[in-house]
Amino acid sequence: MAKSRSEAGHDSLSTQYRDVRALTLALAAPLSDADATVQSMADASPAKWHLAHVTWFFETFILRDHVPGYRAFDPGYAYLFNSYYEAEGPRHARPMRGLLTRPSLEEVCAYRAHVDDALLRALPMLRAPARPLLALGLHHEQQHQELLLTDIQHLFAQNPLEPALFDAPSASALDLPGPLHWVEGREGLVEIGDDGRHGFAFDCEGPRHRALLHPHALGHRPITNGEWVAFMEDGGYATASLWLSDGWAWVQANDVTAPLYWRRSDQGWSRFALDGRHPVNPAEPVTHISLFEADAFATWAGARLPTEAEWESAALNIAPGSGTLLDGAMCPRPRPATGTTGLTRMFGDVWEWTGSAYRPHPGFRAAKGAVGEYNGKFMSGQFVLKGGSCATPRGHVRASYRNFFYPHQRWQFTGLRLAKDL
Amino acid sequence: MAKSRSEAGHDSLSTQYRDVRALTLALAAPLSDADATVQSMADASPAKWHLAHVTWFFETFILRDHVPGYRAFDPGYAYLFNSYYEAEGPRHARPMRGLLTRPSLEEVCAYRAHVDDALLRALPMLRAPARPLLALGLHHEQQHQELLLTDIQHLFAQNPLEPALFDAPSASALDLPGPLHWVEGREGLVEIGDDGRHGFAFDCEGPRHRALLHPHALGHRPITNGEWVAFMEDGGYATASLWLSDGWAWVQANDVTAPLYWRRSDQGWSRFALDGRHPVNPAEPVTHISLFEADAFATWAGARLPTEAEWESAALNIAPGSGTLLDGAMCPRPRPATGTTGLTRMFGDVWEWTGSAYRPHPGFRAAKGAVGEYNGKFMSGQFVLKGGSCATPRGHVRASYRNFFYPHQRWQFTGLRLAKDL
Amino acid sequence: MAKSRSEAGHDSLSTQYRDVRALTLALAAPLSDADATVQSMADASPAKWHLAHVTWFFETFILRDHVPGYRAFDPGYAYLFNSYYEAEGPRHARPMRGLLTRPSLEEVCAYRAHVDDALLRALPMLRAPARPLLALGLHHEQQHQELLLTDIQHLFAQNPLEPALFDAPSASALDLPGPLHWVEGREGLVEIGDDGRHGFAFDCEGPRHRALLHPHALGHRPITNGEWVAFMEDGGYATASLWLSDGWAWVQANDVTAPLYWRRSDQGWSRFALDGRHPVNPAEPVTHISLFEADAFATWAGARLPTEAEWESAALNIAPGSGTLLDGAMCPRPRPATGTTGLTRMFGDVWEWTGSAYRPHPGFRAAKGAVGEYNGKFMSGQFVLKGGSCATPRGHVRASYRNFFYPHQRWQFTGLRLAKDL
Amino acid sequence: MAKSRSEAGHDSLSTQYRDVRALTLALAAPLSDADATVQSMADASPAKWHLAHVTWFFETFILRDHVPGYRAFDPGYAYLFNSYYEAEGPRHARPMRGLLTRPSLEEVCAYRAHVDDALLRALPMLRAPARPLLALGLHHEQQHQELLLTDIQHLFAQNPLEPALFDAPSASALDLPGPLHWVEGREGLVEIGDDGRHGFAFDCEGPRHRALLHPHALGHRPITNGEWVAFMEDGGYATASLWLSDGWAWVQANDVTAPLYWRRSDQGWSRFALDGRHPVNPAEPVTHISLFEADAFATWAGARLPTEAEWESAALNIAPGSGTLLDGAMCPRPRPATGTTGLTRMFGDVWEWTGSAYRPHPGFRAAKGAVGEYNGKFMSGQFVLKGGSCATPRGHVRASYRNFFYPHQRWQFTGLRLAKDL
Repeated sequence: MAKSRSEAGHDSLSTQYRDVRALTLALAAPLSDADATVQSMADASPAKWHLAHVTWFFETFILRDHVPGYRAFDPGYAYLFNSYYEAEGPRHARPMRGLLTRPSLEEVCAYRAHVDDALLRALPMLRAPARPLLALGLHHEQQHQELLLTDIQHLFAQNPLEPALFDAPSASALDLPGPLHWVEGREGLVEIGDDGRHGFAFDCEGPRHRALLHPHALGHRPITNGEWVAFMEDGGYATASLWLSDGWAWVQANDVTAPLYWRRSDQGWSRFALDGRHPVNPAEPVTHISLFEADAFATWAGARLPTEAEWESAALNIAPGSGTLLDGAMCPRPRPATGTTGLTRMFGDVWEWTGSAYRPHPGFRAAKGAVGEYNGKFMSGQFVLKGGSCATPRGHVRASYRNFFYPHQRWQFTGLRLAKDL
Repeated sequence: MAKSRSEAGHDSLSTQYRDVRALTLALAAPLSDADATVQSMADASPAKWHLAHVTWFFETFILRDHVPGYRAFDPGYAYLFNSYYEAEGPRHARPMRGLLTRPSLEEVCAYRAHVDDALLRALPMLRAPARPLLALGLHHEQQHQELLLTDIQHLFAQNPLEPALFDAPSASALDLPGPLHWVEGREGLVEIGDDGRHGFAFDCEGPRHRALLHPHALGHRPITNGEWVAFMEDGGYATASLWLSDGWAWVQANDVTAPLYWRRSDQGWSRFALDGRHPVNPAEPVTHISLFEADAFATWAGARLPTEAEWESAALNIAPGSGTLLDGAMCPRPRPATGTTGLTRMFGDVWEWTGSAYRPHPGFRAAKGAVGEYNGKFMSGQFVLKGGSCATPRGHVRASYRNFFYPHQRWQFTGLRLAKDL
Repeated sequence: MAKSRSEAGHDSLSTQYRDVRALTLALAAPLSDADATVQSMADASPAKWHLAHVTWFFETFILRDHVPGYRAFDPGYAYLFNSYYEAEGPRHARPMRGLLTRPSLEEVCAYRAHVDDALLRALPMLRAPARPLLALGLHHEQQHQELLLTDIQHLFAQNPLEPALFDAPSASALDLPGPLHWVEGREGLVEIGDDGRHGFAFDCEGPRHRALLHPHALGHRPITNGEWVAFMEDGGYATASLWLSDGWAWVQANDVTAPLYWRRSDQGWSRFALDGRHPVNPAEPVTHISLFEADAFATWAGARLPTEAEWESAALNIAPGSGTLLDGAMCPRPRPATGTTGLTRMFGDVWEWTGSAYRPHPGFRAAKGAVGEYNGKFMSGQFVLKGGSCATPRGHVRASYRNFFYPHQRWQFTGLRLAKDL
Repeated sequence: MAKSRSEAGHDSLSTQYRDVRALTLALAAPLSDADATVQSMADASPAKWHLAHVTWFFETFILRDHVPGYRAFDPGYAYLFNSYYEAEGPRHARPMRGLLTRPSLEEVCAYRAHVDDALLRALPMLRAPARPLLALGLHHEQQHQELLLTDIQHLFAQNPLEPALFDAPSASALDLPGPLHWVEGREGLVEIGDDGRHGFAFDCEGPRHRALLHPHALGHRPITNGEWVAFMEDGGYATASLWLSDGWAWVQANDVTAPLYWRRSDQGWSRFALDGRHPVNPAEPVTHISLFEADAFATWAGARLPTEAEWESAALNIAPGSGTLLDGAMCPRPRPATGTTGLTRMFGDVWEWTGSAYRPHPGFRAAKGAVGEYNGKFMSGQFVLKGGSCATPRGHVRASYRNFFYPHQRWQFTGLRLAKDL
């Protein structure tokens, strides 16, 4: 007998929920209790915390608020696993997250199972106001899947033994992509931003609005490691005139001479990733660079970074799944671009720094309640990144998607694509 | 006998030079050698340093580069008084500026006289390439006139004795301005930015470009102290949901509960200024607030900050000299707005925070050489302020003028005007 | 057949070795991999690091240096588990110890087993120069047993859930000890310090030397929690005149208002320990206080701290095992003093702060080689503590024993005994 | 007519008062208002602050407390110029002292004149309890004379122009002193410490007490710059095993490679002093070294630092005025030792670091009231220095005098004399 549309909707949502939740566990599967507990810097969180926090999100905003009779798995967890929602009350200080050796990884997995069970049972009865929160929760968990990977990579990089979490994926081909060519972008008024009619989007992606583009072109592919080495060998990190003032101060204060995780030895440059340390492949897109580095490179190259509107407009007709994205629990790695006509690698591979500050779109209003804190309050001091990376779960990213980080941060899979005025 | 056009140009430039230089000295006149030497925080500079640095600017970019045979007043000064021009070589660290008890204020004044003398003698023979640099030097010095005042105010505020540098100006009337009303702005494409055809502008003000405005209105006047007290009394500084995340962290880390220089006693709120401590006048525009505070106030008021383009477009037909500006050596003080139709106090009184990050205008290119470092390299992490303040020298500001500070900084005469979407 | 004396010596040493090593493992038995990995502050080390470091000590100074053919378990461990021996080459930075999620606790236990096996096999053939190093290694491991416990207690105290590692020991009786009485000490010249003739001692305990005692008396027992509460209730933590200047600065910078791990609620004061949070027992010796606190209390009480020589002289004829010491893997806890004549609780229960700076005894020479770094190089800025604590392994302490910590440190079981001039 | 004994006492005290006060002014005479205002580090104070603080001391503890009817010169000064007397109420934070550009140097001099006038008029009527406070005030001012010089030297050293405050004194002879020989010290019980019967002493110098000396010898003169260069050339600053652990951390954190104010150029080593920069004279005693450096040198030399008791016992029969001391307002400079028999340069020239922590003498009790804070509360973390320096006013120092600084501090005229066990 055919299922009703509502039943099918439940089935689909339930499948989606199971899939997202299962991928998170699969990503964490190679981690020991200790791996999942330690925090390597204030910007990063322990894997165990990610596992619990995304669960707390469902428990709080769905089960507590919309499922009568639900009882919290542990009343102390709200304090421990609230990230930054002021409206949800006081919480454990972020830089202290790595001190929580208890609950154990096993207990956190039990917490996940408890919430999964309650949520899947409640799902068919969920009322309409809860459904967007469920979708939000799933996309929220996908964001933490990427953070879990980048945070673990940062942690393992602090270990002098440089352990590998995953087996090395088959190496990317060393065939260098051909020279960069320029793809002219639209000019004049364009429509960008989420219009709320095509599936899930975060509040900050909207509203749909007109933007004005000036004559410009974009590089057809991201900048590669090989091109980055040329920048380095030309003294890029030692030439003040290439850098934003804050960037130059950052370079000097931190003795920055290469992308994060790079090291030079007699054998040349190597980079550390979740599959251990390997030689830098000149064909791959450069990654783990800050906005400061991206901007200095662009200046060195006589170009600039794209604006968010230029990038988004160019991506409107490109399939979000066309780049290398996270398809399962294995070592994420950007792939060389092979295309030679049109824009390639706009999605996946590396988050592309734009030259646009992360500020509200015209007409933006944050959502009501605690989830209104999700995006809006971070709109100072950060820059927009577009397109997703090899660690972004497939299905998570789209043209209007706005990722954002401070200009000095670079432990994500961050890279760049050039732009220029025409 | 009539002067030639070129002679008249020299005369006018020479008069302008004398006037600007004289105002700087007049502002510094009440300062003791010690007042002029001490640095109260890394963001501020000693008055003596301002006096010398602007002189070094003329000495270096005009006399050294364009006047054959000029000999530096003291070869050690380049190291001491270069501010941030990497291309000009190493220099004294900014936070150490206050340790220079020698050269004395008197010696710095002799340095000024030496450079003035050489420059005024050279002026008639100056070749064309040097003339824009001279204009740049004069506007540069005007910027430091304002900084000299705000830096001294900050220094004197650290002194428990709270000395007054100037006599109190006649008090502003206590007549409160009427309620705020909204003035609708232009919509659609507008032209803003400097077009290089109407006198001096800094490189970052251009190029002239089209911008797209969405339906909006601006408050007809700046927010007053009286309105600010209402925000405070409504718990504004204690309500996390009103604040940007970085702002809330700043409030908590610094126990911020009022604008800078405000203090509460049994007699109510007072504020410290260059004329000492006086009661807060509810009719005056609020000042010495950070972008974080301005943004929180706007959120509390159900409004937002204007974008730079909205502000600039609205100011295009307003005379830059229409507000309270610095007309001489006396205590700067914003004046209450009295107008009730149209926009008032757009220029002068208080720098108005915009919600726009300080980033390059479309097509911006920094100037060549050391002076190319003047503006462009600061385009990350800062916000644009518009309109000038009561401490901005008359003649210095215009609609396209872009001031910029970090969102936590508030020792300038910073205030706000509300905007809203229509 | 009777064993030869040498064989018996081997047997005894081998038994001692097995016992010490087994106790360490027993102390760590309740720890999860995560518990054993995290570092809660720079002063503390992860349990896993303790387990590995003491093993590295045997591996390096015995197996590597004195057992031909021994091959290191893992050549990377020397870098990770050298604590502070400059002569042994570069090493992992102390504050980074908690970032080592690999090797796992299990691998570290395998490392221990490997070294134990090699060492026990080599033991009968060990040449004379290696034997003092073996004894040093065992006493070294005992020191780390105590640190392992105090470091874990500190870690668990950072967890808002305040987990208990051990079951609560039977509560100490609440019978308050009687009032403090004074026991007169020796006057004139006494002989103290290790003479090298009575078993193991650290190099810093010698040489035996004469010291001059001035007329004085010691309190017959340590100060209790009940007496400490009286100090607190009399405003002890708020009265500047009671404190050393550095101590007062420390109190103010850290908002210190009670011993470490104490918290006040409606039910009164509680303290956190390895068995969780329990009410403060007024009969027990106060512990987890800094030298600054101990000194302020003594000043408040009209007394002073004992000098090291006064304490050591008084302890010469007291059995080191007479107090509460660590007898196995269970929650250490100081016990109330019940004696009323003569000195009680000189050994065990709480380390007693002396007023003596940790400086060399007359004629002290550090040992040659890397182990010469064991004690001598720490002789600035620290104070001597005497007598051992409830977390000091039985058999480890003696009258000449010199423990030392900085005056602000208090995560050890530190307490005090008063002294006064006669 | 002969004056009565009391009149003569007044005359003498009044002369002494005038002399001390006059020397302070003479030392400050070459300073500009700015020189006298700036603070170059938290450990140092502005000259103006020294001038005012010592005056506040007389005003508070003599005029306010013992002269009926005296009215404070300015009631705000107590807050500004109290140094660290908690009993005297809240006060301006030490690191903020350099922000006080007002009162001016001239006003502070007027404050001095006002207090001098009041005090000299009151002097004949001063009651007995006030007289020790007057003596204390004078010795207090002498301490600040030395600090004024060393603080100004530190300030001027921060100025890249390295201004000279005084003309260079005639250069010391370059004749190197002969090799160091050893002078055997007393052994057994000795009496040291102030007995209160021979003029003024600070409370911490007493009480007189017996001390036990072990067989030892002292170097007959301080270590010279020439010997220090040998230490440096032998890798002294790069050899971890020579250093106390805290010292090695200090060397590495601060890149210490030479005494303070030394710099190496093609012409060899030079040192900055109040007469500007000059070549290092190998014959002069080394100065501006920390305890850490002194201790490392002694270890390198196979020796150790003297204990305070050893030093004081050796100095008992040496005239305190026998070394180079401050005799007036001119550039202080240690002189080479020329003597070859017995101990030389025990007094003056350089403060000699001892290996003794600054702790109370047996039986020490701090004075009652605010002046009890003078010495006692600093008895943790610091080491004793003996003998005075070339910047110590003549008449100020004696064998029992205890100077004290933290082991990393070296902006005083600090040097060392070796000791060894016999």
